[in-house]
Amino acid sequence: MAPEGFDFQYTSSSTAHKGRRGTLTTPHGTLETPAFIFCATKASVKGLMPSQLRAVGTQIILSNTYHLYIQPGPEQVHGLGGLQKMTGWNGPMLTDSGGFQIFSLGHGSVAEEIKGRRMTNRPKSMLKITEEGAMFRSYKDGTKHLLTPEKSIQIQRHLGADMILVLDECTPFHVDKEYTRRSMHMSHRWAERSFVEFERTHHIPHAPQSLYGIIQGGVYPDLRREGADFVNNLPFFGHAVGGSLGADKSQMEDVVSLTMSLLAPERPVHLLGIGGIRDIFHGVRQGIDTFDCVHPTRLARHGGALIKPKFWEGQGKPKEHLNIRNQIFANDPKPLDPECGCETCQTFSRGYLHHLFKAKEMTGLTALTLHNVAFMNRLMADIRAALETDTLDQLEAEWVIS
Amino acid sequence: MAPEGFDFQYTSSSTAHKGRRGTLTTPHGTLETPAFIFCATKASVKGLMPSQLRAVGTQIILSNTYHLYIQPGPEQVHGLGGLQKMTGWNGPMLTDSGGFQIFSLGHGSVAEEIKGRRMTNRPKSMLKITEEGAMFRSYKDGTKHLLTPEKSIQIQRHLGADMILVLDECTPFHVDKEYTRRSMHMSHRWAERSFVEFERTHHIPHAPQSLYGIIQGGVYPDLRREGADFVNNLPFFGHAVGGSLGADKSQMEDVVSLTMSLLAPERPVHLLGIGGIRDIFHGVRQGIDTFDCVHPTRLARHGGALIKPKFWEGQGKPKEHLNIRNQIFANDPKPLDPECGCETCQTFSRGYLHHLFKAKEMTGLTALTLHNVAFMNRLMADIRAALETDTLDQLEAEWVIS
Repeated sequence: MAPEGFDFQYTSSSTAHKGRRGTLTTPHGTLETPAFIFCATKASVKGLMPSQLRAVGTQIILSNTYHLYIQPGPEQVHGLGGLQKMTGWNGPMLTDSGGFQIFSLGHGSVAEEIKGRRMTNRPKSMLKITEEGAMFRSYKDGTKHLLTPEKSIQIQRHLGADMILVLDECTPFHVDKEYTRRSMHMSHRWAERSFVEFERTHHIPHAPQSLYGIIQGGVYPDLRREGADFVNNLPFFGHAVGGSLGADKSQMEDVVSLTMSLLAPERPVHLLGIGGIRDIFHGVRQGIDTFDCVHPTRLARHGGALIKPKFWEGQGKPKEHLNIRNQIFANDPKPLDPECGCETCQTFSRGYLHHLFKAKEMTGLTALTLHNVAFMNRLMADIRAALETDTLDQLEAEWVIS
Repeated sequence: MAPEGFDFQYTSSSTAHKGRRGTLTTPHGTLETPAFIFCATKASVKGLMPSQLRAVGTQIILSNTYHLYIQPGPEQVHGLGGLQKMTGWNGPMLTDSGGFQIFSLGHGSVAEEIKGRRMTNRPKSMLKITEEGAMFRSYKDGTKHLLTPEKSIQIQRHLGADMILVLDECTPFHVDKEYTRRSMHMSHRWAERSFVEFERTHHIPHAPQSLYGIIQGGVYPDLRREGADFVNNLPFFGHAVGGSLGADKSQMEDVVSLTMSLLAPERPVHLLGIGGIRDIFHGVRQGIDTFDCVHPTRLARHGGALIKPKFWEGQGKPKEHLNIRNQIFANDPKPLDPECGCETCQTFSRGYLHHLFKAKEMTGLTALTLHNVAFMNRLMADIRAALETDTLDQLEAEWVIS
């Protein structure tokens, strides 16, 4: 069910995979898909002005409901014209439900679990999950808040992103099947409440919005089937693949493949929080339309520049990025990536970028962020072109470390 | 004596003051003067890409020899093509001699003295001043270094800025006349040594450079006269007004007026470290051609947005800036300055900027820096136009709080 101002169309040209080339229209512009969504957690892609985002081909950004609920608050964002106007981005945006931050602060994230960290030192922000919603403590002033499905929709209505998400429980990967089943059923009841609230509050935002349902079911095929049936039967505009994707990449690929085989094909599908180059190629082959991950921008702030395998330099096993802090770049007059058209690569040498990071200069963070955003946008543009010509395998050999 | 690629021309059209409208040509471009020079201390205007500097009308930036000597080192900068190429700025640049940082770390700065701070908690970086030079300790690794007049020129030759300065002793304002006289005479001997080294090392930089002599003499008219005679008699391309300018604004205005009446009029004159709006108008009337100060960019990083008096809002006495952290801006949909054409004012509301600072988002620092740079460039453009039409008084009434 496409709300006013929304549309999704796609074509598939491969017999070997389910990858699709689409266009996703929103009231703030049309995305060419597959597309990557960059994180503007607190309503800003850290260090970049809107003109810089546009200059490197960015199509869409997302903000986090949890952070904006706490600062500056949904009414303030609404009063300043909604997210798209307030940020000066004026293009398509997505918000999450706010649940992910609350639950990952409570449960610990999958990544932290894999790495054996137990978060014993961090304040427990999530206090309680009940049928009603999730009780949590503000990181800002310690006050208690209850996030219900209705509340999440109300906040997202005020923030005004084009695509918004239902509240779900983000279960950690170590829970058993019974917990996953019970959690999924509660998330389904939350999704239904979200949908009712979404219908009730259509008068709030400055422009129409579309609602995405989230497929749960963890790593269990029968639960995924039930989760897919549930979202397919509610009139969501799009779907997001959520819940635990497993403990490792191979399990994640299995879960994504299975889930994608079950979803109504006419709706756009977003894969939550996945941004590795190899994972994107895999997801695209399963028919994923949009991806998001904090990785490209966060990596940049730590001196990591995304790079095609052929431009990688360093000791040991090649990586998807080079570390500009590495002393080997101190006198390197080459750009990060000679094929990249971003201002950083057109203007700065690796040697200068190395200096900026050594000297802790803010411009270094900006410059690498700009490059990594440009890199992801170029990757997605290449993927879209390869989908049209059915040459995804050749493209993957160029972008992914073999 | 204009080195190859340099030229300075000016016209004066007022009988009431000595303000002049000029053009200062360098190998990296021509400045329209009076001009403001922005601080790129460690070879970067913090948070801004070169295209952003250009977009808001920036003509020239400066870097600090002291910082670049320590990180990344003059040979590294030279190897990466010199400052203008390395930074991607590719426009006119100036470097100081490195002395100011060393001496201000040793003596304490004038501002700190005025405010009664004695710097008892800071490490004493300057170890010893002798006829040979200044011995100091690196802030980076604690190693000892001797900065001589020759060494300063060698470093600045490698950095490659268009305009470079002789090493002088920066005396604090509280020293007596006898100290000031002895210090000035030593600075004169250092200036002669600088000049000899400058002639000897012309083969080093990637493009010709010009040398500025510094007028000493503190607050003592007879010493200022002697200092002016000294620099007038050496073939410097330009002059910089240095030494103590006094303990308050009124004394500073007297010292600047007197000094400017003594200097050879055909050479461009730079006023070191002064950037207040009222001070700039005063300096311009005395014939100052270029100004520099860290104030506009540093202020921005603390949430201060430069603003014309008519746009100021807040409690108490009007200021040259508004503090965007102030809660009164939380819901303000207006731009910082409706007359400003910078991306920040064209794109962001005060309310959004307030949020960015509250949320500690890097983009807030970038946005305010961009605005403050645009503001200073607009001020200087207005001043140049007013010099052409002899309407400086009317202009000052618009820009300076009465």
